[in-house]
Amino acid sequence: MTTMTDTREAEAGMHDRALATALFDALRAASSGVGINRDSYGEGESEALDLVEDEARSLGLATERDAGANLVVTLEGRDPALPFLACGSHLDSVPQGGNFDGGAGVVAGLAILAGFKREGFRPARTIRLYGLRGEESARFGKAYMGSGALFGKLTAADLAAKDMRSERTLGECMRAVGVDVDRVARGEPLLDAQRVAAWVELHIEQGPVLTARELPIGIVTGIRGNVRHRVVECVGEAGHSGAVPRWLRHDAMFATAELISHLDRHWRTMLERGRDLVVTTGVVGTDPNEHAIARIPGMLRFSFEARSQSKETLEAFYDLFLSECQMIGEERGVDFKLDRRLESAPATMDAGWVQRLRAAARNLGLPDEEIPSGAGHDAAVFANAGIPSAMIFVRNAHGSHNPREAMEIDDFLAGIAVMRAAIREATQ
Amino acid sequence: MTTMTDTREAEAGMHDRALATALFDALRAASSGVGINRDSYGEGESEALDLVEDEARSLGLATERDAGANLVVTLEGRDPALPFLACGSHLDSVPQGGNFDGGAGVVAGLAILAGFKREGFRPARTIRLYGLRGEESARFGKAYMGSGALFGKLTAADLAAKDMRSERTLGECMRAVGVDVDRVARGEPLLDAQRVAAWVELHIEQGPVLTARELPIGIVTGIRGNVRHRVVECVGEAGHSGAVPRWLRHDAMFATAELISHLDRHWRTMLERGRDLVVTTGVVGTDPNEHAIARIPGMLRFSFEARSQSKETLEAFYDLFLSECQMIGEERGVDFKLDRRLESAPATMDAGWVQRLRAAARNLGLPDEEIPSGAGHDAAVFANAGIPSAMIFVRNAHGSHNPREAMEIDDFLAGIAVMRAAIREATQ
Repeated sequence: MTTMTDTREAEAGMHDRALATALFDALRAASSGVGINRDSYGEGESEALDLVEDEARSLGLATERDAGANLVVTLEGRDPALPFLACGSHLDSVPQGGNFDGGAGVVAGLAILAGFKREGFRPARTIRLYGLRGEESARFGKAYMGSGALFGKLTAADLAAKDMRSERTLGECMRAVGVDVDRVARGEPLLDAQRVAAWVELHIEQGPVLTARELPIGIVTGIRGNVRHRVVECVGEAGHSGAVPRWLRHDAMFATAELISHLDRHWRTMLERGRDLVVTTGVVGTDPNEHAIARIPGMLRFSFEARSQSKETLEAFYDLFLSECQMIGEERGVDFKLDRRLESAPATMDAGWVQRLRAAARNLGLPDEEIPSGAGHDAAVFANAGIPSAMIFVRNAHGSHNPREAMEIDDFLAGIAVMRAAIREATQ
Repeated sequence: MTTMTDTREAEAGMHDRALATALFDALRAASSGVGINRDSYGEGESEALDLVEDEARSLGLATERDAGANLVVTLEGRDPALPFLACGSHLDSVPQGGNFDGGAGVVAGLAILAGFKREGFRPARTIRLYGLRGEESARFGKAYMGSGALFGKLTAADLAAKDMRSERTLGECMRAVGVDVDRVARGEPLLDAQRVAAWVELHIEQGPVLTARELPIGIVTGIRGNVRHRVVECVGEAGHSGAVPRWLRHDAMFATAELISHLDRHWRTMLERGRDLVVTTGVVGTDPNEHAIARIPGMLRFSFEARSQSKETLEAFYDLFLSECQMIGEERGVDFKLDRRLESAPATMDAGWVQRLRAAARNLGLPDEEIPSGAGHDAAVFANAGIPSAMIFVRNAHGSHNPREAMEIDDFLAGIAVMRAAIREATQ
């Protein structure tokens, strides 16, 4: 039996496909060089905003630029005094990046607003699509600049950060594209969080989970925070590899190998207990100035990073890390020297919205699996500003931040359908 | 009760101390720069040979240079037709090395020959002291050049090896100090191993064992051989450190940490079973061109080295290494790629000589503890040429190959006394 909803959804899907295909092609064509190049607060990013704005206007939607120079597309609600629902994502990219990282969320929002407009759906509250700038950290070493600026979170140090190639500061580049940098510099919010009822963001998954589990989409439960040390230095004692017996060794590599192996076991235990956690030592090395095959390594440097959706899990794991450093250090006569602890807070997606998105997926005959976000997203900034936030991940092969990222259009349309149904429900 | 032997030994000790102090001072004074610099087949080495030769002559001993341009000091025996007993060590040093590494064995031999001469002891067979050249690998990347040349073991590639600073080849430098390079190049032995009854070498310990165990000397049971891989490459898969969960990771560092931890356990088990073994990964590192704190390391390179006095232990451990690489590789979806296996054979010290030296130590009221040699020595070349060989280690602080090496003269005199008693017994 075909219901009216089915028919409407089928028709919307056709429009979505046509819009998405054309807009992704146009975005790709606008970018030159290897892969996609839409530098944060740079020319490529501005061109992408212009392109999406032109498309929105041609679809009969109202557009503007906010004080952060972001693109805002508005579908006015029946009661404009009500806090509005915001959706969207970012339009910048890393150098030699992919077309869907960020772009997918903006195209999805535009398809939804265009569809509502087309079918004459007038939402109870206003819906605004954001084409955000400056999400990627590649250019200035700082992520979430666009959403951060909206909530007055950029510091003077952030604004003084320089593009490594052009030597221009973030502040200069923001001003050049029309950001009200003086307000940003004063830490003044450009957007009143009280005025935002919710933030809904569709994004490609930047990991392999949906692909591995054969799921087209996933509903994000939270965005992992992290605790990091850029450099942990394990200091033991160098010595002749043939002449020092095991009981007199203070081998920095053997000590670190034991540490990592113990952390791996604690990690496994925490996963078995249902905790969310990933652990990485991305940078590891003995000192090239003094290491040798026949020399017991007296020093080894490595980076440490743990990520979790739960602050409590992060702290519990971090304590295990410290206590293992202590115990192994004592047992092996080595010293683990930690540099400054860096951290970023996890963000929890709104439970009501997670349920709404899952229900919408089930209603559409789609899997409603939950998935954590390991990578950071603008949604974390909105959530930590107190706005109920939600994310839909779309399956994507080959990771992200490279031109090989690969989202299937059918998966994308499934994500749009779920997002549309949930927004319709929340605003009707 | 003071026996005649006690009195003779006390007198010899006084002479040894005077000779050793003067000769070590002279050797140190002859070297310029930081620490001791007696380049293999270079000027500093030649000066050391000249200095010892002058001293030997002034003590009434016969001296000559052999076809390898080594210094040979002879105390003729009652039957010169009998195979002779050889002792000594090397006179070269690493750059910025220590005064005792090698030099101690030559000074010990000279003290013993001088003592025999002084007291009119005429050995049954001739005793020859060797002041060998070219033991250290620092200059030409090849060790045991002097002893190797004696037994026809240098290859054309060895002779073509270049000094990294002067660009002169080993062959050129050998010829310049008087080596019969044509014979060496033909692989012709310069010394008939059948003519050598035994090789006895005193050397400072290059590890910390005697210091840690508070022993002035040790009797060497064997010289460790090794099996090595310069580069083992663990190849996994790089990925976003936040976005890839544990079950989808192929983390090269976590895999390698598990490998090293397992090897450490196997090592401990082998030690508990009484095997001789040391294991080292001296060089470890992720690739600086692609590693990052937020990136799962897709590749890690490390060196592998195991050393043992027993070929069987080496092979048993090496098999465990291969099987761990295989198992961990399968479990974690990584690949351990091994470069060419390199090896050097262990050398066993002569059991009869080990017992003779231990008995001599006990007779002198000294500890008779056995110790393996982790570092390589000329004695390994003599042993592997089929000559019964023996070594006495003297306690030495701060390792070797640096100017801080520190041998106490009293420990050295204890080593000489043991060596003298054993040689006297073997030649009377």
